[in-house]
Amino acid sequence: MKSIKCSEIAETVKGEIIGDENVSIFNLNRIEFATQGELTFYSDPKFLESLEQSNATCIIVPKDLDRKPESGQTYIKVDDPYSAFIKIIKLVDFISQEAATGIHKSAVVGENTFVDESVSIGPNCVIGNNCRIEEGSIIESNCTLQDNVQIGKNNRIYPNVVCYKDVIIGSNCIIHAGAIIGGDGFGFTENREDGSYTKIPQIGNVIIGDDVEIGCNTTIDRAVVGSTIIGNGVKIDNLCQIGHNCVIEENTGIAAQTGLAGSTNLGKRVRLGGQVGIAGHLKIGDDVTLIAQSGTNKSISQGGVYFGSPARPQMQAFKIEAVLNNLPELARDIAKLKDKK
Amino acid sequence: MKSIKCSEIAETVKGEIIGDENVSIFNLNRIEFATQGELTFYSDPKFLESLEQSNATCIIVPKDLDRKPESGQTYIKVDDPYSAFIKIIKLVDFISQEAATGIHKSAVVGENTFVDESVSIGPNCVIGNNCRIEEGSIIESNCTLQDNVQIGKNNRIYPNVVCYKDVIIGSNCIIHAGAIIGGDGFGFTENREDGSYTKIPQIGNVIIGDDVEIGCNTTIDRAVVGSTIIGNGVKIDNLCQIGHNCVIEENTGIAAQTGLAGSTNLGKRVRLGGQVGIAGHLKIGDDVTLIAQSGTNKSISQGGVYFGSPARPQMQAFKIEAVLNNLPELARDIAKLKDKK
Amino acid sequence: MKSIKCSEIAETVKGEIIGDENVSIFNLNRIEFATQGELTFYSDPKFLESLEQSNATCIIVPKDLDRKPESGQTYIKVDDPYSAFIKIIKLVDFISQEAATGIHKSAVVGENTFVDESVSIGPNCVIGNNCRIEEGSIIESNCTLQDNVQIGKNNRIYPNVVCYKDVIIGSNCIIHAGAIIGGDGFGFTENREDGSYTKIPQIGNVIIGDDVEIGCNTTIDRAVVGSTIIGNGVKIDNLCQIGHNCVIEENTGIAAQTGLAGSTNLGKRVRLGGQVGIAGHLKIGDDVTLIAQSGTNKSISQGGVYFGSPARPQMQAFKIEAVLNNLPELARDIAKLKDKK
Repeated sequence: MKSIKCSEIAETVKGEIIGDENVSIFNLNRIEFATQGELTFYSDPKFLESLEQSNATCIIVPKDLDRKPESGQTYIKVDDPYSAFIKIIKLVDFISQEAATGIHKSAVVGENTFVDESVSIGPNCVIGNNCRIEEGSIIESNCTLQDNVQIGKNNRIYPNVVCYKDVIIGSNCIIHAGAIIGGDGFGFTENREDGSYTKIPQIGNVIIGDDVEIGCNTTIDRAVVGSTIIGNGVKIDNLCQIGHNCVIEENTGIAAQTGLAGSTNLGKRVRLGGQVGIAGHLKIGDDVTLIAQSGTNKSISQGGVYFGSPARPQMQAFKIEAVLNNLPELARDIAKLKDKK
Repeated sequence: MKSIKCSEIAETVKGEIIGDENVSIFNLNRIEFATQGELTFYSDPKFLESLEQSNATCIIVPKDLDRKPESGQTYIKVDDPYSAFIKIIKLVDFISQEAATGIHKSAVVGENTFVDESVSIGPNCVIGNNCRIEEGSIIESNCTLQDNVQIGKNNRIYPNVVCYKDVIIGSNCIIHAGAIIGGDGFGFTENREDGSYTKIPQIGNVIIGDDVEIGCNTTIDRAVVGSTIIGNGVKIDNLCQIGHNCVIEENTGIAAQTGLAGSTNLGKRVRLGGQVGIAGHLKIGDDVTLIAQSGTNKSISQGGVYFGSPARPQMQAFKIEAVLNNLPELARDIAKLKDKK
Repeated sequence: MKSIKCSEIAETVKGEIIGDENVSIFNLNRIEFATQGELTFYSDPKFLESLEQSNATCIIVPKDLDRKPESGQTYIKVDDPYSAFIKIIKLVDFISQEAATGIHKSAVVGENTFVDESVSIGPNCVIGNNCRIEEGSIIESNCTLQDNVQIGKNNRIYPNVVCYKDVIIGSNCIIHAGAIIGGDGFGFTENREDGSYTKIPQIGNVIIGDDVEIGCNTTIDRAVVGSTIIGNGVKIDNLCQIGHNCVIEENTGIAAQTGLAGSTNLGKRVRLGGQVGIAGHLKIGDDVTLIAQSGTNKSISQGGVYFGSPARPQMQAFKIEAVLNNLPELARDIAKLKDKK
């Protein structure tokens, strides 16, 4: 990042400066690590010791903090230091500010493909026939878009992303490196005589809405027929697997290494922790949360928090876990009770 | 897909037409989504309402369905609508019908490498020395084959696949985008003094048989010595991990995000659900099924269905799960019984 | 491998030759598979039958083995056949002995980037601006290093690796194909009205120490601010996920498909089995081992072995598992005891 003055930061977060407002910040960091030239924030009393020992040049602190900055250190007092810190991150963020640079000369672009002149296509990209890439989208190096892929406006597609045929992506999406969109679903018929498989061609596609973020090396399979659908505002972390014909509704979030088998629907604002697994042909209702490593082979209609594999309502699951801690003792109790008979 | 007439479809599936045989179909879709110009099928009474409300132009229905198509709608009556629908998918499938197009000018091909003239090698592929690629195989963009890789006939290798040195692939295989075949196994000796690791060079290879499908971003490690072996007809879904020196026998199927540690053998027709984990140096016998999210650190010789982590025979696992639901009540019962003593 | 004489092998492992010392070895293999021209080792009596039936040309055996080689077969007797075999693997290893070959003409290198003249950069690599790649490092085909990436000495980076901006890698590391280093962490604020997410820019980086190995298709996220840190000697297997701001200390090993949520710290010599999951903002102490498929949402300070999801000390977990096997019977016992009241 370029340097930025404490006074500008204080103005952005509408904070009160205690100390030198002219000092410059060159980086942001967590309070345990922040040092000279860096800005950090303090809100959780758990980190009081880090605050006391910090060499950070500038610290965002709560309004009511009863403490003065060290000499040469500046505090900026605000209502909510965490929210203020996020505002500052956005202020200094440079990552999404790249200029578009046209089509690199090493890129291969097919026939009958429209690329808006504001689009950036990186080195060694391979774009098929009959594609459409709209204004402001940036496609980084070594990506492949097969035939008939449509990319809307202002998307950022990181290196090594592959979109199979017929994939449609809306606007303002971020697709991280190595994500594979539109690979074949895992669909076979099983031959009874010898247990061998015959492939069912997967002739559907994947449709991704607006404001979607897809993590690194995540895979989203094309539908056998029809579409696998990722709704507006959905965020999917790294290394997730979305099976063929899944439908994910708006503003659902899925943490890393989670998998959905085929034809499963997730409602709105579903939250799946990491390494969650959901079997095929299920419906998970709006506002359902599954804690990390949970799994279910049954639909869940009622919003709420669930845990375990198989998943149970959180309170029930936690009560069972608590009893499990004493299970060996309970078994001994039962043995004694039986002996006494 | 190109359009196709209902009469041609009826002929393919040997069905009886109720309605207009000359109407054209432009797409296939699921019954919940199919609309004008689309064909779908109905077999499960669960979808009766979808059938009744469907605007699909043509619907494959069971012979004994007691219902007439809407005006302007065509039914095709068959014994088994699902099987018929899969036949139609195969009829209209265009995905595997690409013409081979030779070696793209941007591809880099090493010395002493044989590429049959019918082979297609996409843009930016990098093929090492001493490789062999046989007739009809298609290697899409941005793939790397290191030295001494052998690819048989009529394989389709999607973009961004990497085959490390010495990998051997049979014929009629599909390797999906981002799959990495032949990376180093995770093999180290641990140094007792400081717990540091020393790498054991992984000098074996990976051998893949015929009719194998490997999913997107799946990783299959090379053997430390000898070969990691994937048998004929094996199907592996996305994001799976196959450790070094594993041997997987014919017609075994592995769903997404499943992992095998090193030197584990799977027999014939094993079915592993998603997110299954199998420890190293085990033998899983023919016809063993492990339900999704199961795990085992013991060999399983007896065919059958297993569930849980650690995995138990399905019936036992389900009985235990049923009791777990009441575990807090059971604990209270025991407490009461003890009090009464 | 090139051929090598038994006499040279015996010298390397300081072993005693029983048989012909002039016979040549062309490959190494496991005892179940080794055949003519191949060398293997025997140490575990479980493989006695394989030893007896082996056609291997040379077998490393324990000093005290009471058995003679077949005619035409050579034994080399040593104290520890397994360690000796690993020494021989290192002797014949050719994989890491590639000569560096300069910058391939198809590679794209940005401005103000230093590439030592001994470095090898493969076809279709894309290197950004302000990068630094030090002596002896090999970067294979189709890799992307974004701006400001620093790569130390003698690293090997396999094909299709992506390093996002500002990533720093030490020396003597191996990064396997498809690994993505420095992707955005999964960081959002949730908007209360509609459950939608607002992205928190991830402006930190990833710092990787020396002697680190990263597996195929593994993803390591950049910090929101500050650094995600992978310490010296850490080994991470395939398809793992390391969240933003994690810190992993020296000589820790992580098996395949394991995931760490954000801001979690692993101490020294931690061993995580495959498919382990660790929630965010936790501290896992030195010398903690988590068995495969375990998960924890609590910090673990005490070294030792843990199992389960949620993870418990191994002995406790195993005792609980043992009782679970009898849980249906225990439930019946309780029912009977209640009836008798």
